[in-house]
Amino acid sequence: MIVIAGVHTPEEHIQAIVEVIEKEGLQAHVSRGSDRTIIGLIGSVEPKLAEHLRQMKGVEDVVKISKSYKLASRDFHPENTVISIKGVNIGGGELVVMGGPCAVESAAQIDEIAGLVKAAGAQVLRGGAFKPRTGPYSFQGTGVEGLIMMAEAGQKHDLLTITEVMTPEYVDICAEYADILQVGTRNMQNFDLLRKLGTCGKPVLLKRGFSSTYDEFLNAAEYILAGGNPNVMLCERGIRTFETYTRNTLDLSAIPVLQQLSHLPVISDPSHGTGRRELVVPMTKASVAAGADGLIIEMHTDPDNSMTGDGVQSLFPDQFADLLKDLELLAPAIGKTFHTPSAVS
Amino acid sequence: MIVIAGVHTPEEHIQAIVEVIEKEGLQAHVSRGSDRTIIGLIGSVEPKLAEHLRQMKGVEDVVKISKSYKLASRDFHPENTVISIKGVNIGGGELVVMGGPCAVESAAQIDEIAGLVKAAGAQVLRGGAFKPRTGPYSFQGTGVEGLIMMAEAGQKHDLLTITEVMTPEYVDICAEYADILQVGTRNMQNFDLLRKLGTCGKPVLLKRGFSSTYDEFLNAAEYILAGGNPNVMLCERGIRTFETYTRNTLDLSAIPVLQQLSHLPVISDPSHGTGRRELVVPMTKASVAAGADGLIIEMHTDPDNSMTGDGVQSLFPDQFADLLKDLELLAPAIGKTFHTPSAVS
Amino acid sequence: MIVIAGVHTPEEHIQAIVEVIEKEGLQAHVSRGSDRTIIGLIGSVEPKLAEHLRQMKGVEDVVKISKSYKLASRDFHPENTVISIKGVNIGGGELVVMGGPCAVESAAQIDEIAGLVKAAGAQVLRGGAFKPRTGPYSFQGTGVEGLIMMAEAGQKHDLLTITEVMTPEYVDICAEYADILQVGTRNMQNFDLLRKLGTCGKPVLLKRGFSSTYDEFLNAAEYILAGGNPNVMLCERGIRTFETYTRNTLDLSAIPVLQQLSHLPVISDPSHGTGRRELVVPMTKASVAAGADGLIIEMHTDPDNSMTGDGVQSLFPDQFADLLKDLELLAPAIGKTFHTPSAVS
Amino acid sequence: MIVIAGVHTPEEHIQAIVEVIEKEGLQAHVSRGSDRTIIGLIGSVEPKLAEHLRQMKGVEDVVKISKSYKLASRDFHPENTVISIKGVNIGGGELVVMGGPCAVESAAQIDEIAGLVKAAGAQVLRGGAFKPRTGPYSFQGTGVEGLIMMAEAGQKHDLLTITEVMTPEYVDICAEYADILQVGTRNMQNFDLLRKLGTCGKPVLLKRGFSSTYDEFLNAAEYILAGGNPNVMLCERGIRTFETYTRNTLDLSAIPVLQQLSHLPVISDPSHGTGRRELVVPMTKASVAAGADGLIIEMHTDPDNSMTGDGVQSLFPDQFADLLKDLELLAPAIGKTFHTPSAVS
Repeated sequence: MIVIAGVHTPEEHIQAIVEVIEKEGLQAHVSRGSDRTIIGLIGSVEPKLAEHLRQMKGVEDVVKISKSYKLASRDFHPENTVISIKGVNIGGGELVVMGGPCAVESAAQIDEIAGLVKAAGAQVLRGGAFKPRTGPYSFQGTGVEGLIMMAEAGQKHDLLTITEVMTPEYVDICAEYADILQVGTRNMQNFDLLRKLGTCGKPVLLKRGFSSTYDEFLNAAEYILAGGNPNVMLCERGIRTFETYTRNTLDLSAIPVLQQLSHLPVISDPSHGTGRRELVVPMTKASVAAGADGLIIEMHTDPDNSMTGDGVQSLFPDQFADLLKDLELLAPAIGKTFHTPSAVS
Repeated sequence: MIVIAGVHTPEEHIQAIVEVIEKEGLQAHVSRGSDRTIIGLIGSVEPKLAEHLRQMKGVEDVVKISKSYKLASRDFHPENTVISIKGVNIGGGELVVMGGPCAVESAAQIDEIAGLVKAAGAQVLRGGAFKPRTGPYSFQGTGVEGLIMMAEAGQKHDLLTITEVMTPEYVDICAEYADILQVGTRNMQNFDLLRKLGTCGKPVLLKRGFSSTYDEFLNAAEYILAGGNPNVMLCERGIRTFETYTRNTLDLSAIPVLQQLSHLPVISDPSHGTGRRELVVPMTKASVAAGADGLIIEMHTDPDNSMTGDGVQSLFPDQFADLLKDLELLAPAIGKTFHTPSAVS
Repeated sequence: MIVIAGVHTPEEHIQAIVEVIEKEGLQAHVSRGSDRTIIGLIGSVEPKLAEHLRQMKGVEDVVKISKSYKLASRDFHPENTVISIKGVNIGGGELVVMGGPCAVESAAQIDEIAGLVKAAGAQVLRGGAFKPRTGPYSFQGTGVEGLIMMAEAGQKHDLLTITEVMTPEYVDICAEYADILQVGTRNMQNFDLLRKLGTCGKPVLLKRGFSSTYDEFLNAAEYILAGGNPNVMLCERGIRTFETYTRNTLDLSAIPVLQQLSHLPVISDPSHGTGRRELVVPMTKASVAAGADGLIIEMHTDPDNSMTGDGVQSLFPDQFADLLKDLELLAPAIGKTFHTPSAVS
Repeated sequence: MIVIAGVHTPEEHIQAIVEVIEKEGLQAHVSRGSDRTIIGLIGSVEPKLAEHLRQMKGVEDVVKISKSYKLASRDFHPENTVISIKGVNIGGGELVVMGGPCAVESAAQIDEIAGLVKAAGAQVLRGGAFKPRTGPYSFQGTGVEGLIMMAEAGQKHDLLTITEVMTPEYVDICAEYADILQVGTRNMQNFDLLRKLGTCGKPVLLKRGFSSTYDEFLNAAEYILAGGNPNVMLCERGIRTFETYTRNTLDLSAIPVLQQLSHLPVISDPSHGTGRRELVVPMTKASVAAGADGLIIEMHTDPDNSMTGDGVQSLFPDQFADLLKDLELLAPAIGKTFHTPSAVS
């Protein structure tokens, strides 16, 4: 249920509403927008309470919300969430690009790639230290060592960093070294991991399960939000369909749908979404035109020898740089901004 | 198999190659490009013939093609096919927009909508006279009468027309009244219909089956091409997945994939691809950014009372006009052109 | 809407009800069961008419049916449909097995296989004369000649015959030579073909579209029933999923679901449903245990050299015979009967 | 790679082979069958080593295995794995039935249901203490308390117990109280959980991810096996498809496929596989006919008021008991055995 109050409702009236709600043992979440204030309730609401709230000062309406997710829904929080990290704003009007290798392989590798990522105009360095692999005999990542290498490369090149965390046990150490924690597609419904991320203190990029509905996706985000962490990005990374030419089918409708249902920023991953280098460029542009707030793109200096064997979906550094220049042209046509260093100079 | 000859190979050498091929009872398809000439062979090629061809004058290489489709493949025909109909070029650098109602309901309805379609800047009027309906008790279209109404509206408003044909028996009459014949998603593998369209003398827009692979799609196009009709457009209109929020999942990767595998123009249908009016605008833009050569979009003056019940995916006239103005901005950022009448004046 | 009358309601009362319905321009379908009589109405029913019917003699209840299909639904026709063809009953308690090659290749081939099919205990000979092929350059079947060869083999070996018809134009000739006409998965929504089959005078086996829902499937059957042909069998033949190890995923839940929603016999096709010979035996048994009324199984004397390349899913004659012996054991455990010739002697 | 030795190869020769393999830093897994002995190697094998092994005493052949999973594959372990727990053998010729509620709700509930499960002839009590729920505000299970209640009910009624574990942290306590640990469909690729289960000392039932391929499924099992736990059961529980009438599509082909590719027992879950009570009975029978080694079936005394809201897929106690009587009839027709208590008396 939500209580709608006017934007000019005095703070004391809002407080009175919150108190009434909390006295009933429910949670109240206040979201102040430019044209109204929403107080969202979580918990089972008695009809009597709804009636009481409706008659309180400042209340314009009391509306039942049927969606199972609350904090993630735009009903509860009508304005876009903008996540600010060290000066980078995700979910505002500026495109955010996250680039880097599938896996952190060595200090030299991640340092070199970080330099190229920065030079191309991206704001975030991506790289996996803990890798989810289909079979137990494949390379499983460089672990904590890799985390540290990436943190150093990010710091040196003035880039935010994002890395995947696979199990609750490693949330704390990942949160120590990275700016953004990523939940992979196979872990979208790893509920103990989501609960732990609710209290980790760092923004989370949650990837959609490769066969998860929008509703399940937003409910997974709700686990993190309900734990107290409001900084969640939703990432479309392709769904599994009958088509085998592409690794996955990148579902770009997810972008406008999620933006309508939720206030959280939406990121697109055309690398996993297609699994083919030659499709990353057109699908990045399509993602932007569909309204994506950001992109996460694999780039590697030597993709044919990448340690995960995923190089086939990694751009070469030149392609990555050219693509970002194209985005600089495309962004304004879609009402967004994006700047590469060359443009600035 | 293809024979590659230099672009400057004299016509008589090309003719000699073709003669050798045809003497073996095979078909030869010549495609002259800007940097080389390709002679594609259809039929079972003996190794001896390949050897002989390799040594003929002008031949640079003889290459085996493993794909099951030939005429549809870019190997056979490296340059883009541009389909020209009364001054409209589909597959060249200009975006082509096809707009109109799901079904032709009356002369007045199609005339009014045609006027709006034209005014917004679209080049083609869409409208179904024969409607494929899930159940036998639903409205099945206005039939030949509807065909005639649409032809008149198209002529009056100087628009090309496109309409669906469902069975071989009706190909001739549809070809008499419409400029482009459309094969619906359920008929993509109606092989007798495809064969008949190979000889109909009109361009064909072939919609992808809602669960058909790219390979099956190109093989379906091959049926039409093999029948002698080179003017085929491929249309992505959404595939069936587990997600039920959208009517279909519009697979935009299909656009660059089909353009790499084939030389045929690729059209996107965001109306059926999403089934929700509010998603048509972002997905149209995403289609253009992904490289689509054209769009087919439902628009209706009274969508809530459309006779097919599909109004929920139809744009209102104002939305349609606004969208086309946005495309005018977007097209140059992606290397295409598109002009609305207001821009010209 | 349906009108429910008692089983002992005299014929004249039923006739009076039918007359009232038909006077309103609607169709009335009478289905007499063992415990009640159902009169199903097709067409748009005014509330007044419903009220009037409710008060007529013999009427126990008048119930609105929300499903879009009517004649196919168990609401309209509560008792199982049993299709009797020359002494073979499909949909009664006896399992019906249809066996034979993917395609009729020659008179000798179909004659030899027919002998083996008969000897193993099957009642129906299957074989394609017109073959739906993904690409235009593949073997397209032996056509009318093949039809005649199969009719002769069927007659000689005292087997019913079933063959696929792909386009309205060929319905009449197929109906002349075969006992059962089959609609392939790609044509499940070829509505003109379905309409033509409604008047063909022969039973029809309708295969489920490889990505069609149960609801779409029953609506497709409704087209045939609404045309006046009550003898329709529903065939589950596998759906398209993300799994590529099998050619399709045989959806055995379809069997009990369709039997609950409809009164039509349900046949299973484990050959196309799996695409792998080694899975045909277990999936045939599973189909029977799930309640299938019959099976359609590919068998070939030389599968490695079959002209369609589908031999990989064809049983060898010995496997086919052994499987039918196993069914003889399994059928009674599931409340059905099946007899092989060896058991009779 | 596998080394094949004759069944009569003396132990000392086998030991010599193992020593050579281990000296190269590889793992050797010996599987003695009735007609040959297989020594499976895990690790990267140099051609030289293969050559050396081929010439050792007792070696009949050295064969490269291309599958990414090793210990799970039938190549490594040709004979069926039979898991014996307190006298119950899973994977031998006797059907194993696991029955019980979706969630352990109270001591009284689980005790009553356990009595009914035992009386019907099942060998294992199922029940969830930790429940994976789509949203954070749903009932999340009774936790450790529930574990204890179920252990007591199992002991009292002489039933094995199976329960789901969701995160590595809880593996030890679940292993303390339950006889079999279950990995749910959403956790099939929770690799840290799988690793932890490799050392838990209890048999594991691994459910297939609802959109996971057979190959991914066997690789997930490989994680547990590679950790040192050989007692893994594979459970088909339905996959996600476009069909929405059923909760999932139970893929029964998985049963014979997994039994061909692997030696591990295969269990079917028709409750989650269909999500509809009325389909559980036919799909249980179909599972047995397809070759399942066991079944896991939801049963509840008051399904309409189940705490998880999953009651709609739970059988009533009478239906459960009747079904098990039917299995007693069906099992012998398929070469298996199953006995209900009534049959014994």
